[in-house]
Amino acid sequence: MRVFIAGIDGYLGWALAQYLAARGHEIAGADLFLRRRWVEEMNSWSATPIRPMEERLRAFKERFGKEILFKRGDLRDYEFVENFFREFQPEAIVHFGEMPSAPYSMIDVDHCVFTQTNNIVGTLNILYAMKTVCPEAHLVKLGTMGEYGTPNIDIPEGFFEIEYRGRKDVLPFPRQAGSWYHWSKVHDSNNIMFACRIWGLRSTDIMQGVVFGTRIDEMGDDERLLTRFDFDQCFGTAVNRFCAQAVIGHPLTPFGKGHQKRGFLPLRDSMQCLTIAIENPPKEGEYRVFNQFQEVYTVYELAEKVQKVANELGFNAVIQPIENPRKELEEHYYNPDHRHLLDLGYQPTTDVESELRVMLQDLMKYRDRIEAKKDVILPDVRWDGTRRKSQFLVPTQAS
Amino acid sequence: MRVFIAGIDGYLGWALAQYLAARGHEIAGADLFLRRRWVEEMNSWSATPIRPMEERLRAFKERFGKEILFKRGDLRDYEFVENFFREFQPEAIVHFGEMPSAPYSMIDVDHCVFTQTNNIVGTLNILYAMKTVCPEAHLVKLGTMGEYGTPNIDIPEGFFEIEYRGRKDVLPFPRQAGSWYHWSKVHDSNNIMFACRIWGLRSTDIMQGVVFGTRIDEMGDDERLLTRFDFDQCFGTAVNRFCAQAVIGHPLTPFGKGHQKRGFLPLRDSMQCLTIAIENPPKEGEYRVFNQFQEVYTVYELAEKVQKVANELGFNAVIQPIENPRKELEEHYYNPDHRHLLDLGYQPTTDVESELRVMLQDLMKYRDRIEAKKDVILPDVRWDGTRRKSQFLVPTQAS
Repeated sequence: MRVFIAGIDGYLGWALAQYLAARGHEIAGADLFLRRRWVEEMNSWSATPIRPMEERLRAFKERFGKEILFKRGDLRDYEFVENFFREFQPEAIVHFGEMPSAPYSMIDVDHCVFTQTNNIVGTLNILYAMKTVCPEAHLVKLGTMGEYGTPNIDIPEGFFEIEYRGRKDVLPFPRQAGSWYHWSKVHDSNNIMFACRIWGLRSTDIMQGVVFGTRIDEMGDDERLLTRFDFDQCFGTAVNRFCAQAVIGHPLTPFGKGHQKRGFLPLRDSMQCLTIAIENPPKEGEYRVFNQFQEVYTVYELAEKVQKVANELGFNAVIQPIENPRKELEEHYYNPDHRHLLDLGYQPTTDVESELRVMLQDLMKYRDRIEAKKDVILPDVRWDGTRRKSQFLVPTQAS
Repeated sequence: MRVFIAGIDGYLGWALAQYLAARGHEIAGADLFLRRRWVEEMNSWSATPIRPMEERLRAFKERFGKEILFKRGDLRDYEFVENFFREFQPEAIVHFGEMPSAPYSMIDVDHCVFTQTNNIVGTLNILYAMKTVCPEAHLVKLGTMGEYGTPNIDIPEGFFEIEYRGRKDVLPFPRQAGSWYHWSKVHDSNNIMFACRIWGLRSTDIMQGVVFGTRIDEMGDDERLLTRFDFDQCFGTAVNRFCAQAVIGHPLTPFGKGHQKRGFLPLRDSMQCLTIAIENPPKEGEYRVFNQFQEVYTVYELAEKVQKVANELGFNAVIQPIENPRKELEEHYYNPDHRHLLDLGYQPTTDVESELRVMLQDLMKYRDRIEAKKDVILPDVRWDGTRRKSQFLVPTQAS
């Protein structure tokens, strides 16, 4: 299948290109390399050294025996998107080309406005270019479980049937996102749902949980094929950040009580799920939502898993909660459905500890790179608009 | 009270400035005069001749004995908004400064992207400027009943308590908007709800029905104080368009069956309701939603009311439905709540026919201006992205 990946230089994009190529798909991709710049803006870098795209592309060709059709370009430039689609004629479009960080979007008005306009305009341009060039193609859009927030009822996959004052309807599930970034994804979801309804486009909107992992098997041992691994306050996600902390002997720092529940999944499961979506497209006009995660854990539970595995490997990891810079519930009900992908054949990685062991071993190699930037790990971007480093809370033995 | 009106040169903005001034409020306002340009882009003009702002401001001062603090500027320019708030220190901010047309947003990718970025960025800038300068102020935001679409259940005012799989929560009511413009208002609503939650701002989000009318009493007989009255396919709304058609002997043209139900209200009721919201602000951190309309009618019913009043005035109005350029349900359940404003003292205009009589008499005076632009009345912007004039359907006697 011809698969176009927007944001192919990123954490998920670069891994997916390889996962799909290994399964025989033909890959094209675009990137403006903004992720590299944003992480620099945070005074950080990827723990894994990231090569220039030309070198990545050469290594890709050596390993998979075929080329990626790559172009540097901006999704906010409609002509760029339309012309690329005309040339490549994608059958599936995987859209990772967005600003993906909640804290980054909360820095100030400029970062807020940039996040929402960048994400919304890129998605609108893709929708119009699909309508114009390839209306039969399938848009696989990366959303986030964070679109739903933490309601006090079960979270279905996008839609639910409800009875209200004696009448019934199937409606979009209400969203209660927790940052300007998360809201930008809600705005995207709404726009995509509408484009499917009026133009008959087809899309899978992926409400993905928090991804962790350093590798997928398809990368082999070629360091040039490694994907990026961020650990700074903005672009590092919870489990990845805990692993980076563990290898440099920094305390693992859940936010507040750490009882926040989230769906999590290893990078390899993310690749498996996205591929299932791509290879099983929806029908014309269908807008479907997949909740994509392996299992729900509290943030504290995952810190404890990282601690356990790290200590087995000879580290001396401690957990020290810090002030929560976000405004979020730390105690809440959380029970999201995730049947759709399982029904299509998703086999979850049940051995999370083995995955963490691989990660910690991979990161050992890049310990100096993490150590050199360790000041960027603790957050200072706060949801009230100020910037002040979170302090350690009195260490607690939360469960 | 010091009231800032964004979009003060528009249909609602110019009327509200006068309504509030007559009640003793102090008014400031901003406008970039984009509405004048958009209507020109549609090859149209306001039926009522609109004066340059300097002349409007002079007439305002003569009538109300006080000045409007007016600045020409762009809400997408954060510095402009923050500096204006610093100077005026608003207690209420009424936000009309958005692109308000569904068909205009559906013309092509450029109009779609413009609509969403213009509306979203202006609102985000206002929220940040409020947070920075006047966090106690009250944001009265103009949304639209069109945010909800036409679900098969009752429509509450913004939020509803539901039971789902045996658990209960109060959640935002799901939105199912029908154009890029309507979705931009949903995106705004979501952003505003979030700002109130994290920063403690207070806001009333007005889900307004379709407004009709040429005047409010406060304008007196000074033609310089008249508000604009659009009748083109993009900026003219249903009842206003029917009245413009009636005075030039053009058939009244509901879209399709005309059984679409909507909430409607006269301009004077809109002013009354907005003033009630302004004078009864929510508490700190409260985000409340008012469904603002006088009554629900089908589009066809209102065409019939216009026909009846027009014929009493000696016109010979006929109703001739045209192809519906939109993608919308023409037969549907519709039962939105509208208790909040009534509870705060809203007295609806029950005599819609008297209101239509005033409108038709006012428009008689500007018959030549409507006649000169009558080619712009029938729509050609279609929801499928093409442009083709809607044709008359076989005349029917729908009820």
